[in-house]
Amino acid sequence: MDILRVDLGSRSYPILIGQGLLSDQEIFRRHVGASDVLIISNTTVAPLYLRTLEESLQPRRIVATLLPDGEPHKTLDVIQRVLDVLVANRFGRDCAVVALGGGVVGDMAGFAAAIYQRGVAFVQVPTTLLAQVDSAVGGKTGVNHPGGKNLIGAFHQPAAVITDTRTLATLPPRELRAGLAEVIKYGLICDSAFFAWLEAHADDLLAGEPSALARVIRRSCEIKAAIVGRDEQEHGDRALLNLGHTFGHAIESATGYTRWLHGEAVGAGLVMAARMSRESGLLSAQDLARITTLVGRMGLPVRVSGIAPETILANMRIDKKVQGGRIRLVLLRGVGASFVTADYDEDCLRRTLESQLQ
Amino acid sequence: MDILRVDLGSRSYPILIGQGLLSDQEIFRRHVGASDVLIISNTTVAPLYLRTLEESLQPRRIVATLLPDGEPHKTLDVIQRVLDVLVANRFGRDCAVVALGGGVVGDMAGFAAAIYQRGVAFVQVPTTLLAQVDSAVGGKTGVNHPGGKNLIGAFHQPAAVITDTRTLATLPPRELRAGLAEVIKYGLICDSAFFAWLEAHADDLLAGEPSALARVIRRSCEIKAAIVGRDEQEHGDRALLNLGHTFGHAIESATGYTRWLHGEAVGAGLVMAARMSRESGLLSAQDLARITTLVGRMGLPVRVSGIAPETILANMRIDKKVQGGRIRLVLLRGVGASFVTADYDEDCLRRTLESQLQ
Repeated sequence: MDILRVDLGSRSYPILIGQGLLSDQEIFRRHVGASDVLIISNTTVAPLYLRTLEESLQPRRIVATLLPDGEPHKTLDVIQRVLDVLVANRFGRDCAVVALGGGVVGDMAGFAAAIYQRGVAFVQVPTTLLAQVDSAVGGKTGVNHPGGKNLIGAFHQPAAVITDTRTLATLPPRELRAGLAEVIKYGLICDSAFFAWLEAHADDLLAGEPSALARVIRRSCEIKAAIVGRDEQEHGDRALLNLGHTFGHAIESATGYTRWLHGEAVGAGLVMAARMSRESGLLSAQDLARITTLVGRMGLPVRVSGIAPETILANMRIDKKVQGGRIRLVLLRGVGASFVTADYDEDCLRRTLESQLQ
Repeated sequence: MDILRVDLGSRSYPILIGQGLLSDQEIFRRHVGASDVLIISNTTVAPLYLRTLEESLQPRRIVATLLPDGEPHKTLDVIQRVLDVLVANRFGRDCAVVALGGGVVGDMAGFAAAIYQRGVAFVQVPTTLLAQVDSAVGGKTGVNHPGGKNLIGAFHQPAAVITDTRTLATLPPRELRAGLAEVIKYGLICDSAFFAWLEAHADDLLAGEPSALARVIRRSCEIKAAIVGRDEQEHGDRALLNLGHTFGHAIESATGYTRWLHGEAVGAGLVMAARMSRESGLLSAQDLARITTLVGRMGLPVRVSGIAPETILANMRIDKKVQGGRIRLVLLRGVGASFVTADYDEDCLRRTLESQLQ
């Protein structure tokens, strides 16, 4: 088992990564202090892992609530139903919420925990690659608004992230590929050696080879934990983690969260960010080609069709990265060299969208 | 003008108290950094003060949204409407929400600010005595759930509290008296000299005498700021501020938030806490009489009729003060000497409810 740590003073917490942790009673005894526990999962994951988790949480009072699966259900209405369950079961401030599932389940369980009784404990048990490498770490929680992705939410750090890598054995290939988009992102942000390793091991990863996956989970969490530890609430560096996401969110929003998985939209968004960096004269043609190739090789979209550039631009303007009316973008000077800027040429942005949205 | 300070490290903020601050452009220039501002008020306060506030906030982009007046409207559904307004106007993370009104407006505006884009700036401009002495300070925000008072919410500190004492001139007498319940609470918690001063100046306060009101606002804010500075998220001392509130919330919840104002329910709750302290052999008969007399003299209920003790007990059990299944109460050893305990005699609690609920 690997143990990483997110250093946030009194809100610090461990990330535990290993095979079979879901059935390790001792780990849950140590990291879930509450005697009343609400497990939040979804209708896809629960049949596979809910019973194991419930057994590992014995002898607590356990209530489970299952959400419909998928990003279109990440809404405030569904949060309200979760809050109703907490109240109906008379859970107090000393309860804990445990998220068993992917990014949507984790974001929603975390947000419900953030606003129930002004904040109760919560533990992430991510079961998708995307959640294990990215969304379960860092305390971003929330839901979508019809006007934009993740517009409603809170920073609420988990008490622990418990990652059982065995759960990836049941992950559909499309979901695995979606998670790899976030993995590529970490290499692009700050670790060119990791990016090169991904290029060399793409086949192992796509085949679901356990040791390759364990390595990318560990390295991704290391990078994310370090950045979040420096800038919990995204006043600075943490914005780097949004590489590809301003484009990606706009794609998701424009397609009603139904056509692309979040990770797929991020894949296309990473290529857009690279293309925009190239259009701005920052990135070499060779690096753009490497990035486009790796994203495509992971089975992710490198361009998307059927959306007008104006729609994407309008959606980007309501994204949380806007400051003073100006969209802030994460751009690249090379593989592993990213930066945040609001100082870019609007024409480059337009050309980027036109070339990538066909 | 008095300036107090709530010390919370990077989240510290000033409380400004004075006559006519609402029309002081310089104060708003200094304390509202945003260029996009959403003012949240209600249909009662807006006709009186919205225009003045809008002028003081010039030349920003200002949007105002008016909530229906009253505790029954403090719901997640109304929050959703406020979020819709923020999104529809494409307000970014750098906007500010300004609450113009009483406790309900402040709690809801603060909660909307807490969860919009994972937290935007917010400024309290309280216009009721209750908000000026209590609810605008300390960062507790949220809404009611059909199952209980304030069960959904967040800690989200304001950037400033700007209290124009002149707004009390238009406050209905019933609302003034409701605010005095919280003022009495501060004396009971930790300041017997202040309590004695209230006994001596009850008539001035009930007559709305400005210098007497200014004094109680300042002293109440001093006490609250000190306690919140020691214990922002109520892991310890801050629970003292709930004196009378576990009883009061249960009364409000049992009567659908329509029969009593929050402060009135707190008035009755203070007497219940005193009676419970007396039943437990902690408080002298003389102190119980002093407390009952002052609450009654302020025109507040000292007992309530038409609610069964079982209803109150059931409502108390879902309150946020429950830990390990046990209701935590704030009790008194004397005027100015309060403490939190879960160690009390259930029979005393039952006798208290039976005697105070007739």
